[in-house]
Amino acid sequence: MHKAQDPHFAERVRASFARQQAMLLIGATMPVVEAGYTEIHLPFRPEITQQHGYIHGGVVGMIADSSAGYAASTLTASEASVLTVEYKLNLLAPADGQLLIAEGSVVRYGRTLIVTRAEVFALKHGKKNPCALMQQTIMTVHGKKEMPGP
Amino acid sequence: MHKAQDPHFAERVRASFARQQAMLLIGATMPVVEAGYTEIHLPFRPEITQQHGYIHGGVVGMIADSSAGYAASTLTASEASVLTVEYKLNLLAPADGQLLIAEGSVVRYGRTLIVTRAEVFALKHGKKNPCALMQQTIMTVHGKKEMPGP
Amino acid sequence: MHKAQDPHFAERVRASFARQQAMLLIGATMPVVEAGYTEIHLPFRPEITQQHGYIHGGVVGMIADSSAGYAASTLTASEASVLTVEYKLNLLAPADGQLLIAEGSVVRYGRTLIVTRAEVFALKHGKKNPCALMQQTIMTVHGKKEMPGP
Amino acid sequence: MHKAQDPHFAERVRASFARQQAMLLIGATMPVVEAGYTEIHLPFRPEITQQHGYIHGGVVGMIADSSAGYAASTLTASEASVLTVEYKLNLLAPADGQLLIAEGSVVRYGRTLIVTRAEVFALKHGKKNPCALMQQTIMTVHGKKEMPGP
Repeated sequence: MHKAQDPHFAERVRASFARQQAMLLIGATMPVVEAGYTEIHLPFRPEITQQHGYIHGGVVGMIADSSAGYAASTLTASEASVLTVEYKLNLLAPADGQLLIAEGSVVRYGRTLIVTRAEVFALKHGKKNPCALMQQTIMTVHGKKEMPGP
Repeated sequence: MHKAQDPHFAERVRASFARQQAMLLIGATMPVVEAGYTEIHLPFRPEITQQHGYIHGGVVGMIADSSAGYAASTLTASEASVLTVEYKLNLLAPADGQLLIAEGSVVRYGRTLIVTRAEVFALKHGKKNPCALMQQTIMTVHGKKEMPGP
Repeated sequence: MHKAQDPHFAERVRASFARQQAMLLIGATMPVVEAGYTEIHLPFRPEITQQHGYIHGGVVGMIADSSAGYAASTLTASEASVLTVEYKLNLLAPADGQLLIAEGSVVRYGRTLIVTRAEVFALKHGKKNPCALMQQTIMTVHGKKEMPGP
Repeated sequence: MHKAQDPHFAERVRASFARQQAMLLIGATMPVVEAGYTEIHLPFRPEITQQHGYIHGGVVGMIADSSAGYAASTLTASEASVLTVEYKLNLLAPADGQLLIAEGSVVRYGRTLIVTRAEVFALKHGKKNPCALMQQTIMTVHGKKEMPGP
């Protein structure tokens, strides 16, 4: 549905994700990168839980935010960066499962602003249960340099 | 302004925070707990950064969410738990500084739903710069047991 | 996909909508009522415009809010009422057209809280252009009496 | 706290408000315009109610949105326009009273994006009760012409 203007968007997005040390810290990976769509996967680990033993809602927000932000990034020019302006997240159910999958996608691509959404699912015993829904606004910034990677 | 119904709210909230392994993972502490108000502090560490070298926006969201959720928790009955229904976060500036301070407070306390807000500041060279603003809805749940702590 | 527990949900929802004088004032109708889904239609009139001559963003918000709130209402018990807890609306494009169509639907139905969404389209020269996207939280209240209708 | 760059901001904002026919339709006025702050007042009328006899939540959203959007507009250059990118509104209590007062203010002024907030109060028997809280993102657009007024 969306068409990328940068033919090398997937490599660019993967390289940027690899420089996010916070994603490494929580154990998240980004196995799917398509034009206007990414997925972040996060296996359960005790280190990322809240007081009830489920994955922390803030961690759910982190992967929702990033999956949709990178979905936006797949559609920008190669020299542009994206910034999260704001997002709104509904937690639908506890993040209870062996793996969280955040599916970020672009709803509307504009020159300056990009509206995106993300759904987060908890995979438990082979069933994908919805656990969060996010609506987000992203701004494209031209010419911002990234920090050197690890 | 707010009056706690549980005289031991501060101990209860600190004990719950201590069971959030995700907060330990990112290095957050909760040095301030008052009726209707908490603060979460988070020192800069490379492990929690994004690709530009600032603290990750998702991590900013984590401490905003938790500071306001715990602010709600200070006002509930001792046997109740709180759940984040949803929140909306505007990122105002990069989280650039030596320390992040999330100030969570209760806007309106209701029997079932509690509306809260959080402001996050980045402390840099002795100056407190606003970096995020959040508005949140919390639900009170009665009788939910917490997992045993670490 | 959703199943209504009240067999007379459509009559009940239409009767409630008919008591919303604010909808009458702006000229909105609700031609579609299904289990978990409603549509509100709003023809262009100069009286509902903003300073650029498009339909006012606040009016777009009104029909988005109501279409999704009534979508929630289709799934409740007959004696229950629904209240909007909160909503978040992105305006995607000016509301420029002969007719606005707000499509409200239920994302997740819970006992106390119902998460919904709405998309608003502007119909112009036979084309349906997206103009707003909303994510909303609804609370079910049991036994609240409605005011007598007009 | 905020300083306007356009010395004639108040006249400009009042003239734009006067061109919003939707505000005229619901009976709203804008008696207060300061740098970074406006108030919209809305007297109770049966025509703007919902099914319980209170002022419609969508109408509450309209005046919240507009008060904060015009607060942003007070700080822009004279030739600029502002657009609502998105807003998130919590309804805190029914809009029950003789008069609604929406207080819109600028939280953070940026070159492209302006973050604002609004509080809406219902005045009843001389008491100002909070009924809604909004957080909003506004975009500044340069050179957009307005439609001729009524």
